[in-house]
Amino acid sequence: MNKVGLYVKFRTQPGQRDALVKVLLQAAQQAQNASGCELYVVNTTPGEEDVVWVTEIWRSAADHEGALSAPGAKELIGQAIPLLAGVPERIDLHPAGGAGLRG
Amino acid sequence: MNKVGLYVKFRTQPGQRDALVKVLLQAAQQAQNASGCELYVVNTTPGEEDVVWVTEIWRSAADHEGALSAPGAKELIGQAIPLLAGVPERIDLHPAGGAGLRG
Repeated sequence: MNKVGLYVKFRTQPGQRDALVKVLLQAAQQAQNASGCELYVVNTTPGEEDVVWVTEIWRSAADHEGALSAPGAKELIGQAIPLLAGVPERIDLHPAGGAGLRG
Repeated sequence: MNKVGLYVKFRTQPGQRDALVKVLLQAAQQAQNASGCELYVVNTTPGEEDVVWVTEIWRSAADHEGALSAPGAKELIGQAIPLLAGVPERIDLHPAGGAGLRG
């Protein structure tokens, strides 16, 4: 597979987690229509109150980059930035296979 | 959603990563037939040579526990343990929504 995967960890300003979840769920809707998006799931985590994790899988790195630079994405990034406490952390992945993907 | 999500980070003995990937891809096949498995993806990561990440989403915590205690799962856990360097780390998630899931 040439797919690329990502776990992205967003830490928000105190109390802003649910506002960020809303923005990222809009990003998920955009991703759904973007070329090559196979998975975009927005998660909270019980252990950390002001954290959101996004799980992404794209058909290729080029598809992922293309989606990030789409006009709608830039608008949502602009909405997300004031909610954040610091730069998101990112774990890059190479999906080797598995179960449950649409593609 | 009552879904539960997990990122599980396995660190292997040196050079055993690909052997663990094989075992976990078998686990993915079992998961695919298990009740309530919505996602089970096995990943390597470019930054860490002896690491495997598994991304899981289950319909409920009970479905996840049920799958872990199935007979076939126990056999695969037995195959995985000698390949590991330490106890896997686990990040628990509450999926809030997104795109690309089968269910």
